Amino acid sequence: MIKTDILIIGAGPTGLFTVFEAGLLKLKCHLIDALPQPGGQCAEIYPKKPIYDIPAFPEVLAGDLVDNLMEQIKPFEPGFTLGERADTIEKLDDGTFIVTTNKGTKHHAPVVAIAGGLGSFEPRKPLIENLGQYEDKGVRYMIKDPEFYRDKKVVIAGGGDSALDWSIFLADVAEEVTLVHRRNEFRGALDSVDKVKELKDLGKINLITPAEIVQLEGEDHLEAVLIRKNNEAKEEFWLPVDEFIPLFGLSPKLGPIADWGLEIEKNAIKVDNSLDYQTNIPGIYAIGDVNTYPGKLKLILCGFHEATLMCQSAYQRIFPDKKYVMKYTTVGGVTGFDGSKKEAPKAVVKAIN
Amino acid sequence: MIKTDILIIGAGPTGLFTVFEAGLLKLKCHLIDALPQPGGQCAEIYPKKPIYDIPAFPEVLAGDLVDNLMEQIKPFEPGFTLGERADTIEKLDDGTFIVTTNKGTKHHAPVVAIAGGLGSFEPRKPLIENLGQYEDKGVRYMIKDPEFYRDKKVVIAGGGDSALDWSIFLADVAEEVTLVHRRNEFRGALDSVDKVKELKDLGKINLITPAEIVQLEGEDHLEAVLIRKNNEAKEEFWLPVDEFIPLFGLSPKLGPIADWGLEIEKNAIKVDNSLDYQTNIPGIYAIGDVNTYPGKLKLILCGFHEATLMCQSAYQRIFPDKKYVMKYTTVGGVTGFDGSKKEAPKAVVKAIN
Repeated sequence: MIKTDILIIGAGPTGLFTVFEAGLLKLKCHLIDALPQPGGQCAEIYPKKPIYDIPAFPEVLAGDLVDNLMEQIKPFEPGFTLGERADTIEKLDDGTFIVTTNKGTKHHAPVVAIAGGLGSFEPRKPLIENLGQYEDKGVRYMIKDPEFYRDKKVVIAGGGDSALDWSIFLADVAEEVTLVHRRNEFRGALDSVDKVKELKDLGKINLITPAEIVQLEGEDHLEAVLIRKNNEAKEEFWLPVDEFIPLFGLSPKLGPIADWGLEIEKNAIKVDNSLDYQTNIPGIYAIGDVNTYPGKLKLILCGFHEATLMCQSAYQRIFPDKKYVMKYTTVGGVTGFDGSKKEAPKAVVKAIN
Repeated sequence: MIKTDILIIGAGPTGLFTVFEAGLLKLKCHLIDALPQPGGQCAEIYPKKPIYDIPAFPEVLAGDLVDNLMEQIKPFEPGFTLGERADTIEKLDDGTFIVTTNKGTKHHAPVVAIAGGLGSFEPRKPLIENLGQYEDKGVRYMIKDPEFYRDKKVVIAGGGDSALDWSIFLADVAEEVTLVHRRNEFRGALDSVDKVKELKDLGKINLITPAEIVQLEGEDHLEAVLIRKNNEAKEEFWLPVDEFIPLFGLSPKLGPIADWGLEIEKNAIKVDNSLDYQTNIPGIYAIGDVNTYPGKLKLILCGFHEATLMCQSAYQRIFPDKKYVMKYTTVGGVTGFDGSKKEAPKAVVKAIN
């Protein structure tokens, strides 16, 4: 059982910044996210895209925004349960919560902050009859640890940035990389497309287009995929592979959270924006893109504000008898749980004679 | 008469970021500030102090935060009325407002956003009987244009960072700089104290401590100050000067805004935080440290959020019949009023053969 003060569901920018604001109040945080790394959409979907409306950043790449936030929260030593989806919640008699993931990991906290963005990102799956039979036995929809593919025969399907980028990356790791796409045209960053062409010409990526994977085969584990060319002849052939990675994009789903008894409106969780972004269940808050209220804007900067006000309310819930007096970081500095201390250089009082 | 869409009172971080969010909605902004430069407290009081709680900045100097915001809003060409305090407001029959400063500058806009922070910063004045007689005639409490002091005899009074920093700066500009402080000890950044000592030893700053300025003299304009040493003998002597700059700090006052008919609570303006941060007077909003509502935190990041939601409401007020559909900057880019365009590199669709 993982224990913490604030259990944050969703490790996107809003969830990450919550760790910082909670840390200033000496509250510890643990984050659960279905994606294999922190950062949410910013890290998974568009790490190399610039964002222009983060205050005081005329331009920042989404991936850099995440890196900055990770550095900012480091002193507060957040815990992470990654690659697992928060599935069920149970409220104990003492008002605290137990949240269990789809892999059975249990988390216990007096406060739950749902910072789930548009929901947990579920992979779009190709229509292959016996696909489910090989899931986690040669079929994976997300790459958690590229090293897993070292010296293996890998086939990637897809025509977007993920398919291009992972083909490039795994070309140096896997024994063999085959990229299959139903069209000749790829849609992605120009330099990724060019790089794949270069690796194809060098014989480091085996490119099969226009084509689709239509069948899988293997005893207990995937052993081969049936590839059908999208030409007039519709020729089919078997390719021996160890791993098949269909990368057809991720689509967000509110998922199991929708069944937690929270008031839902337009696929988002209703909160009290006139006070603390708490949901209809006391002790459960919803912040960032996952919540809704009159005038709500799904902007990262709004999530930052919501997280900050929410932490104050969480503090009152956890310590009903304590009065917290806010100190400005410029005045009081930042004291990390790791023993680190950042503070402004103090003024000196010094005579000049 | 200066005309604009949103008239912003206060050019601190919240006021500045309002220009960006308004700009995304194609609304033009003009800012009024009593201080001689944009940035509010961050620029005037603590430009070299680090702030640790701006999201995605593990550490940022207050002055750099202002510089970043100025760069971010540049495409939206804000107008500025600086060094003037917003004094009176008049609501016209058509629901628009005219705001007049203490120097008589008039501004006309359908929406007023008060982003006044803790209020307008008023200088603390020394107790010298005939001080008022020489204001703007040899006595100034803030330095707007350092060039004004070129080749003049300047006496600065004070023992903090402002007195130290301006003495250093003007040592290269003025004909003669005299720094008077009632103690031998100065309170400021170590390198500023050391630099003043160095310039004193070089004869570039005339340092008189412990001492006070007790009287002023001059026909129409200041001509000399009477300096009394704080020693046992209490010797006094006249020093011929062109300009006297007492730098005893600034203290914020809500000021004339308090008489605009706005609902005030604890020296702050009450707003509707459940919707759009509007005050009790429709069309006048209050954002950032100047406002109050249940759970309010006086943090810069909260001002950013409030400014953003406020702009949406302002848009509806200005264009009651238009429906605005928010576009993410990552998708739609940022199009400046100056013709500039920033946008994410587009994905290409390209065949690999």
